[in-house]
Amino acid sequence: MHTIPKDYRRVVLASRPQGLLREDHFRIETLTTPQLAEGQILVRQHYLSIDPYMRARLDEAKSYALPQALGETMLGGTVGEVIASRHPHWQVGDKLAGSLGWAELALSDGTALRRIPNGEFPLSWHLGVLGMPGATAWFGLNQVLQVKAGETVVVSAASGAVGSLVGQLAKLAGCCVVGIAGGVEKARYVCEDLGFDACVDYRANDAYEQLKAACPKGIDALFENVGGAMFDLCLKRMNPFARIALCGMIADYQGQTTPLHHLRQVISMRVKVQGFIITDHLDLWPRAWAELSDYLQQGQLHIRESISSGLAQAPGALVGLLQGRNWGKQIVRLIDTD
Amino acid sequence: MHTIPKDYRRVVLASRPQGLLREDHFRIETLTTPQLAEGQILVRQHYLSIDPYMRARLDEAKSYALPQALGETMLGGTVGEVIASRHPHWQVGDKLAGSLGWAELALSDGTALRRIPNGEFPLSWHLGVLGMPGATAWFGLNQVLQVKAGETVVVSAASGAVGSLVGQLAKLAGCCVVGIAGGVEKARYVCEDLGFDACVDYRANDAYEQLKAACPKGIDALFENVGGAMFDLCLKRMNPFARIALCGMIADYQGQTTPLHHLRQVISMRVKVQGFIITDHLDLWPRAWAELSDYLQQGQLHIRESISSGLAQAPGALVGLLQGRNWGKQIVRLIDTD
Repeated sequence: MHTIPKDYRRVVLASRPQGLLREDHFRIETLTTPQLAEGQILVRQHYLSIDPYMRARLDEAKSYALPQALGETMLGGTVGEVIASRHPHWQVGDKLAGSLGWAELALSDGTALRRIPNGEFPLSWHLGVLGMPGATAWFGLNQVLQVKAGETVVVSAASGAVGSLVGQLAKLAGCCVVGIAGGVEKARYVCEDLGFDACVDYRANDAYEQLKAACPKGIDALFENVGGAMFDLCLKRMNPFARIALCGMIADYQGQTTPLHHLRQVISMRVKVQGFIITDHLDLWPRAWAELSDYLQQGQLHIRESISSGLAQAPGALVGLLQGRNWGKQIVRLIDTD
Repeated sequence: MHTIPKDYRRVVLASRPQGLLREDHFRIETLTTPQLAEGQILVRQHYLSIDPYMRARLDEAKSYALPQALGETMLGGTVGEVIASRHPHWQVGDKLAGSLGWAELALSDGTALRRIPNGEFPLSWHLGVLGMPGATAWFGLNQVLQVKAGETVVVSAASGAVGSLVGQLAKLAGCCVVGIAGGVEKARYVCEDLGFDACVDYRANDAYEQLKAACPKGIDALFENVGGAMFDLCLKRMNPFARIALCGMIADYQGQTTPLHHLRQVISMRVKVQGFIITDHLDLWPRAWAELSDYLQQGQLHIRESISSGLAQAPGALVGLLQGRNWGKQIVRLIDTD
């Protein structure tokens, strides 16, 4: 049986960041647990997903989605369990994934929720490899870049939730895979644990020399999560008819943009650059997850999570993610057990 | 009958420009007219083509083609007439287009030449609308951008050889067409003579305001010939799922690059950016020219040329082109009559 708490906490956006995001841009509030109306469910949230796109949503600037509202529950992907239901299709105990935001409890009318079968994989993985990051990695690699065996594939933010999957999937596809990550330790992790062929430490003084050495035949496909100076240098190494999947520019999300100087290479090398947003392609998510599930069952994917504990840690987890402090998928755990 | 001159002049690259190109980077030489070997023809060149890509070929940097060699005849497209032949397929009097470079006479073994039928169009047009620029405009608009009626198409270097055709073809396809050109006079020409719906003067202080006013529904397709600051501003106005044909970045050809700050819009708006080089698509040139010829016969294309006279003017014509001094197709006339 589930006890319904009398009240619960949520995180709201207190003020819009100008430039660097700080924890004090958020505020924690305690609210009374609402009564269920007919057709509603109450969800106890187990994990929050912390993702780079969130920073962009904090700005008022024109983007592909509405900005996060001030004073409202911070948006974000979540997994949890139904603890009360007046909805015909949801029972107490059902596990689900949704976008219910940074709160310990959430009310839902059942729309835009995904039912999670019990037990096969850890619940939190449905925020990562079997969630949006997994779909993003699969789609970008297979539908945008369309990599072939033997090609050289470069992936930035290689130790992150998306990048780590992109590289591992590219290895399984027979590619030569080069990561870009921040720091010697992460670069070692990307090679030794994730199995990439090489990894460039973008913080090193000789990052460009490392890139050249890692890609002696040039770059055929680039999965770009970061943008900025390293992206600019990658442009210099693109092969004729190379492809770039532009998935994220986290380097530019904190107010300052990094000027790019080598876009001319896109002409010289006849490069195709495709910006994409994975929510445009919801129809393909099940296909991506089916393939990823197979690999997981075969033990062919190394999954790592950075876990912060408790709702109050969510703002700090996002600040840290934007500074590259996470290893693999960053999540916030709200309860002690699955 | 054609008199064979005893000697002829050519322009060679004397030194590589670092930054801005000057006329004194070139040198004129006089050579003795060579004897024809079996299988060769001698061509009297009537017109030289002056094109932006030439600047890139003067650099030693890695590009899609070998750099222009020092001390050798400057490369470039040409049209002319056979004045002596020991080749079975070419007769004296035949008109042809080729890439025979900046010289009054040229020897050829007949490879990579295109026979031009007598008289239907001015010979010089085979360097412009019925040459590489025409193929570039047609290909970029139809194959890369795939514009549809009702879309807003923006074209930079709108008064140039390629841009003027892109815009006119887009108008014929039913698009709303906005040019970008340098100066009030050119902007007026683009609207009044070429029939674009609007034209932004990129030299004006309010260029971005002009762009916004000219594209109230945003930009669906951008044919980019210039790059630089105006390109960066166009990125801010792209519509969801817009396309960019990256054809040239003349703003960056003179050594300095203009930093770009708004590439993030390519993600937000899911833009496809395709760099292309028209010589990859030689198979489609005849199709492009057939369509352009039809339009010319129907009087639906306004053609303008900037003509410099005499071989010695060729370096200055290229320097001027890179500074935007040309109107329409820049050519150099080497003889007095067609």
